[in-house]
Amino acid sequence: MRFISYTKDNKPGFGVVTADNKVIELAGKVAGADCLATLVGSEELLGRAKDYAATATPSCDYDAITLEPVIPQPSKIICVGINYVAHAAEAGRKVGQYPVIFQRFADTLQAADAPIIRPVVSPEFDFEAELAVVIGKGGGHIAPEDAMKHVAGYTCFNDSSVRDWQFHTHQYGMGKTFRKTGALGPWLVTTDEIADYRELEIKGVLNGEQMQEGKLSELAFDIPHLISYVSQALDWNPGDILATGTPSGIGFKRNPPIFLKPGDVFEVVISQIGTLTNTVADEA
Amino acid sequence: MRFISYTKDNKPGFGVVTADNKVIELAGKVAGADCLATLVGSEELLGRAKDYAATATPSCDYDAITLEPVIPQPSKIICVGINYVAHAAEAGRKVGQYPVIFQRFADTLQAADAPIIRPVVSPEFDFEAELAVVIGKGGGHIAPEDAMKHVAGYTCFNDSSVRDWQFHTHQYGMGKTFRKTGALGPWLVTTDEIADYRELEIKGVLNGEQMQEGKLSELAFDIPHLISYVSQALDWNPGDILATGTPSGIGFKRNPPIFLKPGDVFEVVISQIGTLTNTVADEA
Repeated sequence: MRFISYTKDNKPGFGVVTADNKVIELAGKVAGADCLATLVGSEELLGRAKDYAATATPSCDYDAITLEPVIPQPSKIICVGINYVAHAAEAGRKVGQYPVIFQRFADTLQAADAPIIRPVVSPEFDFEAELAVVIGKGGGHIAPEDAMKHVAGYTCFNDSSVRDWQFHTHQYGMGKTFRKTGALGPWLVTTDEIADYRELEIKGVLNGEQMQEGKLSELAFDIPHLISYVSQALDWNPGDILATGTPSGIGFKRNPPIFLKPGDVFEVVISQIGTLTNTVADEA
Repeated sequence: MRFISYTKDNKPGFGVVTADNKVIELAGKVAGADCLATLVGSEELLGRAKDYAATATPSCDYDAITLEPVIPQPSKIICVGINYVAHAAEAGRKVGQYPVIFQRFADTLQAADAPIIRPVVSPEFDFEAELAVVIGKGGGHIAPEDAMKHVAGYTCFNDSSVRDWQFHTHQYGMGKTFRKTGALGPWLVTTDEIADYRELEIKGVLNGEQMQEGKLSELAFDIPHLISYVSQALDWNPGDILATGTPSGIGFKRNPPIFLKPGDVFEVVISQIGTLTNTVADEA
């Protein structure tokens, strides 16, 4: 099923998008779940939600709600750098023994169909199409062979980045966490619909032209390894986001470079998941 | 005044520590403030809290409460690397044109007097005494000359770090954000009591022996500059934490290196602020 977080009439809600683009509201329908993060944190709650949604009458059309980021306020967004070999090459890096980990603040997230914001302080606003894992059951010290049990599902992510700021110093710092630059959505597709995430294909498309392409089978550090690695340092919480890295083709490393500008439309297209679409606007 | 967050009888509270070590509870006493972060976000609320505390009867002894991190769940903890010239030198780095920024997750914070935790995956657990700024009024695009108006006060911070993990890759990654490694406290001292933060002196003391020493006048990037820089990328929220960097003397760069081990006691001592004391324990 496709799960969403949204607002309607200025009230937060969460629910399921049906095959014919209706919304089944889940707020207040599954005792114990007050948002999508708590819902996916429990197999039992998620099961009850699916049972309810299978027969419930939709409350409105998909067009009648305003999407929020799939998880509006994850406790952690953990990003992985240079995790596709071809992207590592274009970035002038090699894949090493450990994954390159950096962080994004939750309050930088934008929903699908909302504009992502080119900051006033930089023209070097670049795209990064990624598959995002949404953590279900939390935990620490998770063995790789147990890690997939902690995955609730998948969504699309654009880890759009401010390149000059990213390289102000040897640490990526603020360049990866500017306000309103991290697009997450449109929906969470649960793991029962994805037989093997390694068969997923991802594309980054700018104004209809394909810029990035990769297969999830190409990840240098696969999802079980990443979940396990991070869990040795701290606990995963339900609804946490793991952004698995971007394939080659980013704008910054092109000759001449391509940067996002107001009016551009960037799409993250992932097979079996869907398309995350965002326009670009200038910071007011 | 010295403001704290705490629990008593398993209930969260916040309040003021008096000169004779009593606690004046503020929860429920200042309409509009439900925690210390919201209280410091408004000069008007903070003023009302001070007026109330000036004449209120304490509700209990300081020993009767359990401290929480000064701000238990800040929306952002922004850390600054190699911000003292002498520490930059020991780390083999030079201070550049921009501050080195990295992040810590809020759920890694520990309170004063609670143990900080040496992780099971590494013996390279090191200390970093720092002055932490607690943001009051939030905002974005703050000019350096306006930045100090956004400071509610100061507290002590131990940005304890897992050195091998910090250098797994070119990004500090997880090494700076292990579970239960970021000690913050014991209290917030408001800016009206600190005539000039540049006069503050900081020491890091291990088992009674001084390991680190610095003056806040030595910061390569001063507090107004740091607040302004970050605010160009994203908005500060009330209660956010800016950790200003550690002076020279960390354990990792000594010959032979010194690492924290169970039973150790590390203190961050800052003049006009107080002492943050934590024992070290092994991860269970």
